[in-house]
Amino acid sequence: MLNWDHMFATRSSKMRASEIRELLKLLDQPDIISFAGGIPDPALFPAEAFQAAYTDIFAGNQVNSALQYSVSEGYKPLREWLVGEMAKIGIPCDVDNVFITSGSQQALDYLGKLFLSPKDTALVTWPTYLGALQAFNAYEPNYDQLSVTGNRTPGSYEATAINMGGRVKFAYLSTDFSNPTGETVDLAARQHLIDMADEMDIALIEDGAYQSLRYEGEAVSPILALEIARKGSIEETRTIYCGSFSKTLAPGLRVGFVVANTTVIRKLVLMKQAADLHSSTINQIAIAHVAERHFEAQVAKIKAAYNARRLAMLAALDQYMPAGTVWTRPEGGMFIWVTLPEGMDGADLLSHSIKTEKVAFVPGQAFFADRSGANTLRLSFSCANEQMIDEGIKRLGRLIAGAIAEAI
Amino acid sequence: MLNWDHMFATRSSKMRASEIRELLKLLDQPDIISFAGGIPDPALFPAEAFQAAYTDIFAGNQVNSALQYSVSEGYKPLREWLVGEMAKIGIPCDVDNVFITSGSQQALDYLGKLFLSPKDTALVTWPTYLGALQAFNAYEPNYDQLSVTGNRTPGSYEATAINMGGRVKFAYLSTDFSNPTGETVDLAARQHLIDMADEMDIALIEDGAYQSLRYEGEAVSPILALEIARKGSIEETRTIYCGSFSKTLAPGLRVGFVVANTTVIRKLVLMKQAADLHSSTINQIAIAHVAERHFEAQVAKIKAAYNARRLAMLAALDQYMPAGTVWTRPEGGMFIWVTLPEGMDGADLLSHSIKTEKVAFVPGQAFFADRSGANTLRLSFSCANEQMIDEGIKRLGRLIAGAIAEAI
Repeated sequence: MLNWDHMFATRSSKMRASEIRELLKLLDQPDIISFAGGIPDPALFPAEAFQAAYTDIFAGNQVNSALQYSVSEGYKPLREWLVGEMAKIGIPCDVDNVFITSGSQQALDYLGKLFLSPKDTALVTWPTYLGALQAFNAYEPNYDQLSVTGNRTPGSYEATAINMGGRVKFAYLSTDFSNPTGETVDLAARQHLIDMADEMDIALIEDGAYQSLRYEGEAVSPILALEIARKGSIEETRTIYCGSFSKTLAPGLRVGFVVANTTVIRKLVLMKQAADLHSSTINQIAIAHVAERHFEAQVAKIKAAYNARRLAMLAALDQYMPAGTVWTRPEGGMFIWVTLPEGMDGADLLSHSIKTEKVAFVPGQAFFADRSGANTLRLSFSCANEQMIDEGIKRLGRLIAGAIAEAI
Repeated sequence: MLNWDHMFATRSSKMRASEIRELLKLLDQPDIISFAGGIPDPALFPAEAFQAAYTDIFAGNQVNSALQYSVSEGYKPLREWLVGEMAKIGIPCDVDNVFITSGSQQALDYLGKLFLSPKDTALVTWPTYLGALQAFNAYEPNYDQLSVTGNRTPGSYEATAINMGGRVKFAYLSTDFSNPTGETVDLAARQHLIDMADEMDIALIEDGAYQSLRYEGEAVSPILALEIARKGSIEETRTIYCGSFSKTLAPGLRVGFVVANTTVIRKLVLMKQAADLHSSTINQIAIAHVAERHFEAQVAKIKAAYNARRLAMLAALDQYMPAGTVWTRPEGGMFIWVTLPEGMDGADLLSHSIKTEKVAFVPGQAFFADRSGANTLRLSFSCANEQMIDEGIKRLGRLIAGAIAEAI
């Protein structure tokens, strides 16, 4: 067999199989209660609405254009619908500020590609969305720890970045019920981040993938909305908002979007033209069809289902978790983040759990750019019913209590 | 408005709007006869077969998985079908050698990303597929002129690449009825390319996007088939074969594929996981559904239609083109390549043509990595009927004859 390693670009050494993903492949067994996957419950997909959408496309006079090449910026009626949705969350914008991607993962890849030269610094929270790290890694950045509450000065970020041979290019964060922690960035922190980005002259990447999934409490304005309110126009802003239909409608069509000033959008459109021409035409039409008719009702339906699971998981954690274990209390989304006593290891716990208690979750370390956080784990409540949640958390509590007792 | 230029990665300076594409947007007028677009004729799409595919997906028990996330390597039944097709063209391989992309454009982007560090050299023909240059540009390579007939020695490529600060990483070529020239690389040249790649220890990227569309003459074995025949197994080969359903079934679903050794395929799968997770699940299922039932009949249908147009265009060129103008005689595909007398400019001709004769085509310069070839142009016969072709070529001949007369 040929040796390919010396033929690959330097960036390819950053592309490694995630041990976690490999491990989780083994967990796809019926006797395991899984809180691992961060995926929507397929039983909640608006399948009939999608069926009607594809049926209408083939019954109408749009068939040939649905099957043909289309423009890189995306299907205009879908972008127009998004302009209306953005207005509802305080983001006045024009259709030229909206760009359709193949899922919001592609937006992260393109933004890494647009901003990051090797050795530039990306600021991310510790922990952050694993997929963001994977997308950015291809562009060989350094990472520095973003403090959303302002514990660090712009000068300290800049000094570290220069030391590492580049400059700070952007801060990336998931604002609402983030993957993996479930936490929401509060209004004061959002305002602080705009100040900081202005002072440092960097971009802010706001990942709003879970924003529609709030089950309690008051909505917090998106950072982009706050920045437009300050500066008067989206054209003056540095926040780049990434959204997705994967959590609200369905991920299998691969449709997401970016909302930003037209300077950034135009670059992204050129990038897409060179990288995959455009996202699937027929799927963009189908998403527009379903969104226009069913978005609100669909979001209401999944919120009710996921909220019941969230409450069940929080109640079970209260009931079964041993002292010394703490967890977040998300107001929305799909995830709860558990911190075990210092010195415990989430990956060890998982391998025990699979053998004995048959409960799956994701050890938290993979979400940390510096590979710290060994004593954390992510629980997802999106795909288990309340009874499974109670049983699974009971087993997990028993396992953790046993591990704590052993360590003493 | 913010100044973003200093915030972008160095690669972003390579991302420019194609003047040609911008110009062609203006040509979407009903009174223009267009030989410009390199797109399939939508009237030939197997729309009923796709309608049946989506109907079956929603009628069956596959709905939820069609709408859900899926694996990065692609839908297994589609990859299995491709294994069968590959066997027919002399490429014995396994399902693990097949990787599904969002169109073959994405394969070119990923291969650029996998192989090219800045200043590495990509060997491409002069002219080559414009989309390949656009995809590779993001990775900041140098280009050198690939001689498919062996007029250059490996040493001359290597010396130039080292001078430019990198090394040669791959040779890219479209083997059959290439975009833009319509020409096919003969068997001796294919064998020579394998020798050359072996000697230089580089990859060969074989773009087979048009390979199914042969209208006359004998098929030439793919380079990958020849290399497997020499070396005994696909695992020992350095040729990476890229294919597409865009020219045979429909481009709007964005489904293409790569066939290669598993070392390269595994890297591409990791890359896709980080870049967009996977190609649309529902569209991969639909493509598999249509391919399994209708591929041969569909290819036969479009070959008959395109061949009639090809013959009409060749006959019209014979009849109307003035002396001093030469063109290729493709045995398949969608394109004929015209070379005007030295000193003439295809872009000038196009701007005259739009004003006077109302015929559109693509000036050839954009297809040359060194921006030479000003006196060339690409004609596509895929989307015009025989009568339009005769009328359009008549007008074009008149225009060129006039321009030659003026220049004398």
